[in-house]
Amino acid sequence: MTPYDRLTARFTRIAALDEASAMLHWDASAMMPPGGAAARGEQLAALAGLGHELLTAPGLAEDLARAAASGEWDAANLTLMRRAQARAIALPTALVEASARANAACETLWREAKAKSDFALVRDALAEVVRCQRDSAQALGAALGLDPYDALMAGYQQGVTAAEVEPIFTAYEAFLRDALPKAEAIQAARPAPLPLQGPFPVEQQRVLTRAMAERVGLDFRHARLDESLHPFCGGTPTDVRITTFYDAAEVGKALMGVLHETGHAMYERGLPEAWARQPVGAAAGMAAHESQSLIVEMQACRSDAFLGFLGGELRARFGGDPAPYAQANLARLWRHVGRGFIRVDADELTYPAHVILRFRLERALIGGQLEVADLPAAWNAGFVALLGLAPPDDARGCLQDIHWYDGAFGYFPSYTLGAMAAAQLMRAARAAVPGLDAALGQGDLSPLMRWLAVQVHSQGSRLGFQDLLRHATGKPLDPGDFTAHLTARYLGGDGLAGAAPGGHDRAKTGRLTP
Amino acid sequence: MTPYDRLTARFTRIAALDEASAMLHWDASAMMPPGGAAARGEQLAALAGLGHELLTAPGLAEDLARAAASGEWDAANLTLMRRAQARAIALPTALVEASARANAACETLWREAKAKSDFALVRDALAEVVRCQRDSAQALGAALGLDPYDALMAGYQQGVTAAEVEPIFTAYEAFLRDALPKAEAIQAARPAPLPLQGPFPVEQQRVLTRAMAERVGLDFRHARLDESLHPFCGGTPTDVRITTFYDAAEVGKALMGVLHETGHAMYERGLPEAWARQPVGAAAGMAAHESQSLIVEMQACRSDAFLGFLGGELRARFGGDPAPYAQANLARLWRHVGRGFIRVDADELTYPAHVILRFRLERALIGGQLEVADLPAAWNAGFVALLGLAPPDDARGCLQDIHWYDGAFGYFPSYTLGAMAAAQLMRAARAAVPGLDAALGQGDLSPLMRWLAVQVHSQGSRLGFQDLLRHATGKPLDPGDFTAHLTARYLGGDGLAGAAPGGHDRAKTGRLTP
Repeated sequence: MTPYDRLTARFTRIAALDEASAMLHWDASAMMPPGGAAARGEQLAALAGLGHELLTAPGLAEDLARAAASGEWDAANLTLMRRAQARAIALPTALVEASARANAACETLWREAKAKSDFALVRDALAEVVRCQRDSAQALGAALGLDPYDALMAGYQQGVTAAEVEPIFTAYEAFLRDALPKAEAIQAARPAPLPLQGPFPVEQQRVLTRAMAERVGLDFRHARLDESLHPFCGGTPTDVRITTFYDAAEVGKALMGVLHETGHAMYERGLPEAWARQPVGAAAGMAAHESQSLIVEMQACRSDAFLGFLGGELRARFGGDPAPYAQANLARLWRHVGRGFIRVDADELTYPAHVILRFRLERALIGGQLEVADLPAAWNAGFVALLGLAPPDDARGCLQDIHWYDGAFGYFPSYTLGAMAAAQLMRAARAAVPGLDAALGQGDLSPLMRWLAVQVHSQGSRLGFQDLLRHATGKPLDPGDFTAHLTARYLGGDGLAGAAPGGHDRAKTGRLTP
Repeated sequence: MTPYDRLTARFTRIAALDEASAMLHWDASAMMPPGGAAARGEQLAALAGLGHELLTAPGLAEDLARAAASGEWDAANLTLMRRAQARAIALPTALVEASARANAACETLWREAKAKSDFALVRDALAEVVRCQRDSAQALGAALGLDPYDALMAGYQQGVTAAEVEPIFTAYEAFLRDALPKAEAIQAARPAPLPLQGPFPVEQQRVLTRAMAERVGLDFRHARLDESLHPFCGGTPTDVRITTFYDAAEVGKALMGVLHETGHAMYERGLPEAWARQPVGAAAGMAAHESQSLIVEMQACRSDAFLGFLGGELRARFGGDPAPYAQANLARLWRHVGRGFIRVDADELTYPAHVILRFRLERALIGGQLEVADLPAAWNAGFVALLGLAPPDDARGCLQDIHWYDGAFGYFPSYTLGAMAAAQLMRAARAAVPGLDAALGQGDLSPLMRWLAVQVHSQGSRLGFQDLLRHATGKPLDPGDFTAHLTARYLGGDGLAGAAPGGHDRAKTGRLTP
C-alpha cells in the first residue's frame, strides 16, 4: 500500500464517521423523542472526538508528508486531505475545548436573551465566543497562510476571500439603494395578490411536495422527505434526507421550502460516486450548496414559466376559485418584495442586505475593529444604512440568528454568494441548453438538472468556489448576472400587468428572465 | 485519574459508539430508503472497527491490569470490563475476518437455499461458518476458562451454562410429551374460537398499540413506535425504539407484538441511569431480556384477567359483534396450541421444543459430534422425536432461521430460558405484590412493572442470569414455575368452559395462573 492508498482508506473511515453523525443529526431533528437529547449529545461528541483523533493521528501526518498523487482528481484530493489535517492540527486542544464550552454556554444564554430581547444577558458570553474565534482565526490563518477571517470563511467555503467579497457586496449595496424603491413603487402600482384559498390538508401537501421533489429529479429510493421544525437537507449522498414543515392554512411555504431543499439534495445525489467518502468527492462548500438550492427554488421554480405550470398543478390538486392560481397572481404572491427586520423571512432582493450587514460586522469582530459591547449599536446603524429601517429591539436585530452565538463566524457570506452564483449558473444554463424555459413551462426541470449535474454536481470539490464558476460559466463570480436577474424580475415591469391567463404570461418568459 | 476512572471514561466512549450503531440499525430497518444500504454498511463497519480498536488498545489493557474497584457495582463493572476485553483480544484478527467473510457469504446463499428449500446450496458455506465458530469457541473458551459452547453462549447471556440448561430442557421434553396431547384434547373439546371481525384500520391500530404500550408504562418522551417488516426493540435506554407490522385484517398480531416489544423497552428504560454507558449498567443478557418481553406479553397480557380488560377495550375501539371480544373467546383465539414446523409461529407450550432441538444440534455442531452434512437428517429426526411431526422440506426444517447461517451459535437457548424465567418472575411477583391480578383485570400493569423495575430492570448487569433470578425470586432457574403456569393455562380446564362473561372469568384468575 502506498502512503496515498493508506490516506484514502483513512479518509474513507473518517467520512463514514461523518456520515453516521449526519444521520444522527437528521434523526435528532426529525425523529428523536425529546428524552433522547442528552444521549444523542454523548454519541455525537464521541463520533466527533474519534474523527478528530483520526485526522490528527501521527501516522496520517507521516503519510501526508510522503504521499504523492497523479492525475487532477487525486492531486485535488491530496490537497484537500492536507488542508483538512492542517485545520485539525492548527487548533490547540485547550482552544478547541474553550471554544466548545464558550459556544455551549453562549447558545444557552442566547435563547433567553432573544426571548427577552435583552442583549446584556448574553454580552459577556458572546465576548468569550469572539475571543475564542479570534484566537482560532489567528491559528488557522497562520497554518493555512490565510487572512484570519478568510481562514474561518474557508471552513464553510473554500476558494473565495473576503477581499473578493467586499467589493461585490459594496456594489450590491449601491444597486439596492436604487432598485429597492423602484421595485416597491412598481409593486404598489399593481393589484394586491389574491391569497390562495385552501384549505391545504397536510396529507395532500405531503403528496404534492413529494411529487414536486420527484419532478426536480429526486429519486426516493435514495431519499426521504420528513417533517421538522426547521427545514433542512441532511443525510448522505446515497441516502439524502430533506425535511419541511406543513401548515394547513398555507401551501407556498412548504412547497417552496421543499423545492429549495431538493436543490440541495440533488447536489448531494449528483456528487461523483467514484470519489465517495473522499474529500474531493464532497460538495464544494456552503456557497456552492446554496447556489444549488436557490437555482432550483428562486431561479427555476419562481420563474414565470414554472409558476404557469405550478398554477395548473395546484388548482388541479386543491380546487377552488381559479383566479389566485393564475401565473401573474402567483408571481405577485410568491415574489413579493418588502423591507423587514428578519433575514429568514426576506425576499430575494433584500436578502443580501441582511447578509452584507452580518458579513461586515463579523469581519470587524474577528479583526478587532468592533467589540461585542458595541454590536447592537453597530447593527442598528448598519441596518438603517442598508434598508432604511431602525430595528425596534435586539430580538429583531443582532439577536435574531443563532450563528454567532454558537460560534459560527464566516458562514453568512455563503447565502448571498450562493444566490449570486445561482443567477450566474442559470444564465449560463439558458445559453447552453436550448428550450430550458419552455421545459420549465411544462414543469420539466430535467434540462436544467442535467446541465447542473455535469457542470456542478459531478465536480465534487475538485474546484473551489471561484474556479467552479469559471468551469461552469466561463468567469468567476459576476454579480452582474444576479442584478440583471433581479432587474428583469422586479424592475422590468413584465408580468406585472394583471391577472393575465397562464398562456399569455408564459409567452413573455423569454423577456422576463433572460 | 485512577486507572479505573480512565476505564469508565473509555467504556463510556465505546458505549456511545454502540449507541450510535443501535440508532443506525434501527434507522436501517424502520426508515432508510433501500439505496442507503451500502453506505449504511460502511458506517456500521467503521463504528464496529473503531469500537473493537478501543477495546483492544494497549492503554486499556494496562489500566485493566492495574485497576481496582471497591463496592459491589464498581467491582461487577470491572469484572465485566475485563470480560469484554478478554473476548475482544481472544480472537485473532485473521479469524475475525474469516468469520465475517464466512457469515456474509453463507447468509447470502441461505436466502436462496431457503427460498428453494435446497440445503445443498448452502451446505459448504455453513460448514465454513461452523469451522470458524468452532475455532472461535475454542479461543474464547480458553481465554475465559469456559467450555467452548458456553463461551459462545456467554456472548448472548452470561451466568448460565449448557450443563445447567441440558437437564432443564430434558425435563421439559418429558413434560411436553405428556402435556401436549392433553392440551390438544382439551382444546379439541372446546368450541372453536370466533375470529374478531374487523376491519382494523391501520391508523386505529397505531393509536391502540401506542395506548397499550403507554398502559404498560412506556413513556413516549423517551420512545418511538414505528413500523418495520420484522418487529424488534432497538435504540438506547433514554430513546428506545420499538417497531411492529400492521395488518388491517388482523389486530392480534400487532397488538401482542407491541406488548412483547414494550416488555423489552421497559427493561431498557429501567436500567440504572447512574451506570449508563458502563458494562454493569446494560441489560443482563438475551435470556433476561426475553424474560421481560414474555412476562409482559405471555404472562400478563395473555392472562385471563388482562384479556377480560382487553376485550372491552377492543370492542370499544372496533365495535361489531360482541361475542368474539368475550374473554374466554380471546383466550381460545390468542392461546391456541398447535404443532407446527415454524418456531416463530409457535405457541408458548410447543415453542420450547423448537429451541431444545436447536440447542442440542448447535451444541453438537460446535462440539464436533455433528457435521453440517448430517444436519438435515438430525433436524428431522429430532423434530419427530419432540413434536411427532416430520418436516416436509428443509425450508420448514433446518433452513427456517437465519441464526446459524449468519454465525449466531449459542443464542437459541435464550428464548426458552427467558420464557421460563418469565413464569418464575411472575410467580414471585404475584407472591410479593397483593392485588396484581386484580390490577391486570383493570388493565393496570403498574404493580407488576414496579416490581420488575426494582427486582430486574434496575439491577443492570450486576448479576448473571442465575444470580439475577436468585435475587428476584429466591432461587435459580426453576422450570417448575413454567410448567405450573402451562399446566394451569392449558391443562387446568379453567376458563375453557365457554363464552362466560368477563367478570366470571376474572374471578377464576387466581386458580388459573397461580
